[in-house]
Amino acid sequence: MTPADEHLRPEPGSIADLYSEPGFGVENLPYASFAPPGGNPQLGVRIGFRVLGVSAIVQSDGTASQSLLKAVDGHNLDGLLMAGRSTWDELRGLITKQLVSADATSTLESYDLHDVTLFMPFTVADYVDFYASEHHATNVGRIFRPDQLPLTSNWKHLPIGYHGRSGTIVVSGTEIPRPKGLRPEPEGFPSFGPTRKLDIEAEIGFVIGGSAPGGEVSLSDAQNFIFGSVLVNDWSARDIQAFEYVPLGPFLGKSFATSISPWVVPIAALASALVEPPPRDENLAAYLDDSRSPAFGLDIDLEVAIDDVIVSRPPFASMYWTPAQMLAHMTVNGASLRSGDFFASGTVSGPGKEQRGSLLELTWNGTDPLAMPTGEKMSFLEDGAYVVIGATAPGPLGTRIGFGEVSGRIMPPT
Amino acid sequence: MTPADEHLRPEPGSIADLYSEPGFGVENLPYASFAPPGGNPQLGVRIGFRVLGVSAIVQSDGTASQSLLKAVDGHNLDGLLMAGRSTWDELRGLITKQLVSADATSTLESYDLHDVTLFMPFTVADYVDFYASEHHATNVGRIFRPDQLPLTSNWKHLPIGYHGRSGTIVVSGTEIPRPKGLRPEPEGFPSFGPTRKLDIEAEIGFVIGGSAPGGEVSLSDAQNFIFGSVLVNDWSARDIQAFEYVPLGPFLGKSFATSISPWVVPIAALASALVEPPPRDENLAAYLDDSRSPAFGLDIDLEVAIDDVIVSRPPFASMYWTPAQMLAHMTVNGASLRSGDFFASGTVSGPGKEQRGSLLELTWNGTDPLAMPTGEKMSFLEDGAYVVIGATAPGPLGTRIGFGEVSGRIMPPT
Repeated sequence: MTPADEHLRPEPGSIADLYSEPGFGVENLPYASFAPPGGNPQLGVRIGFRVLGVSAIVQSDGTASQSLLKAVDGHNLDGLLMAGRSTWDELRGLITKQLVSADATSTLESYDLHDVTLFMPFTVADYVDFYASEHHATNVGRIFRPDQLPLTSNWKHLPIGYHGRSGTIVVSGTEIPRPKGLRPEPEGFPSFGPTRKLDIEAEIGFVIGGSAPGGEVSLSDAQNFIFGSVLVNDWSARDIQAFEYVPLGPFLGKSFATSISPWVVPIAALASALVEPPPRDENLAAYLDDSRSPAFGLDIDLEVAIDDVIVSRPPFASMYWTPAQMLAHMTVNGASLRSGDFFASGTVSGPGKEQRGSLLELTWNGTDPLAMPTGEKMSFLEDGAYVVIGATAPGPLGTRIGFGEVSGRIMPPT
Repeated sequence: MTPADEHLRPEPGSIADLYSEPGFGVENLPYASFAPPGGNPQLGVRIGFRVLGVSAIVQSDGTASQSLLKAVDGHNLDGLLMAGRSTWDELRGLITKQLVSADATSTLESYDLHDVTLFMPFTVADYVDFYASEHHATNVGRIFRPDQLPLTSNWKHLPIGYHGRSGTIVVSGTEIPRPKGLRPEPEGFPSFGPTRKLDIEAEIGFVIGGSAPGGEVSLSDAQNFIFGSVLVNDWSARDIQAFEYVPLGPFLGKSFATSISPWVVPIAALASALVEPPPRDENLAAYLDDSRSPAFGLDIDLEVAIDDVIVSRPPFASMYWTPAQMLAHMTVNGASLRSGDFFASGTVSGPGKEQRGSLLELTWNGTDPLAMPTGEKMSFLEDGAYVVIGATAPGPLGTRIGFGEVSGRIMPPT
């Protein structure tokens, strides 16, 4: 990641000058898979509320390598992810150059964000979900295992994670039917039916690219394989999860759907958001010890709204484990990476009550419902509930980097 | 699945007559991705110790549909999996007809099994591993949680499962470097290093195909989506697993590698192996209640050899949960399937001590090592250990259906 670039100031009349908006200036330049009205899906880049075809920008430049042209000519990010860090940097430099130059304004077509269709930005290979917030893990421990210490004894020695279902990761806006499953009952026999405890988990996800190394990715190498970042809502059926999860972990309580935001924020756009993670309470194994590595905490502010009411503002800066540690852990056993691998942080919860990233925590498993402005009490999600998670992070020169949002509406069970 | 077919008797001089061997007669016809000497990878079918190109067989027939020709022209099973049940049946009928007819002998080229190279038979979409053997789950509970009931209270209400890592599923013969990770130590602080408890898990896996339904697959519909079956060795690092697995399940203790056999046995070849599963001890939710469905237990006999010594003979017929129940469970929450999804049974262990499918159980976590004929004691796998898992099942008319084998050698840590 390069420090804030002083050449970012767009020329008057350039695309970046015409269309820049807070969060989506030329400092950001997130990518998506989009289709213009009546057109086919293609790789796009966003500036303000406009979307431009990446392939058209690259072609207009005239200096692009054949490999770069090929990497951006697909319908989504897959080709670019595969191409690796040097191509990512080349492309970002080229796009920036074009968008800040007044010359390109007349030749590049752009579309209004509201007129385009957005798709899953990349094909997910393996999906790993972590559990990296100390505040979240502590709250969950207190709720589910009140007779034990809230954090399991391994928690501060490694970033706990597990594999999720890649095939049910969906793009923002996809409707979420209420899942069915076996729910615990006081009498001891479970009952089958729609979940009564449908929940959200506000998370940040990271997309992997580059040629797959056969082995470990060190903390200092992580930035070469993390292409970018999205918002994640890891929908969770708490009753189904509670009945099924011992001893092999969550399965059907999570696998029905995971929503992600359509815009992938390049990790290079987050250079100004890098912060030190919280102090470590245990001596860490060398592969996780980041005391002498560049800081890889991220100062991302999340915001969770349900039916247009903001219910939480989770701070990613409070996460105990960093994305670099998650990636180093995932690969330390020799597990190979593939381009398109995706990992999420787990629920982001801060120390404050209004910083919790799940309804499980916000309502203390339904025992302390949220008072909504309508006068209703909310414990978990009802059919029709509309959830929007958004986020921003510091950009260079006092700017902000926007993540856009990940949204979803709960539908009745099918 | 159709009952045993009386037209299976090959004509004298036909390929099936010339090359039939026990386990790999015309009743079986498993598929693989293979390359003939000096040739490119393609879809193959096995008879005895000979391999034939499927595309060549289909082309030689002259009656094949364009969609069938297209489904078999790739380098592996992916196209065929996508094509669905009716194409699978059409292809199996066509291959059988060609191989039992003396006319085709002169026109079809076949290769010696020992001269071809075998590859991963299909691209794995999502991978789910179950825990479907009551004997295995009971043994593991006794070993890991001796102060509790051996089976968790949910075990007989649903087939417990979790997602594994698709990207590290490898074909038989791939060398397995000893993984590293955090291992528990008596002093309380974990240490980092190569696993000291490298283990096997002998399992059966099932490959999904067909157009992905959006919702639940019922017990009676399962056979329309299960294409076929392979042998699985779910390599496990027991110390890493023991330290990490609470509360979200196995992760690095499993994700370094999972080996599968190269030959996918069509589920249609297992019609004579269908048996009733063990009696159920709990009333099951309707979606899992197979008391009125066709039996989907499978009478598959496994055999585990380490360094050429048979250490176990696990019987798949003893599995509590059937593959149909696993698939129904996996999808009851609305989780969609994709062609290429793969699920495995979990360790197959029978009631007898010599029927246990893992060294964890065979040596009772190393406290009761196996006495090898060399005079050595074996608790877990040493570097250089060579593991081979094989299996056969009843075929029609007194024949056997062979699965071939899944093998792997342990290499020193990298």
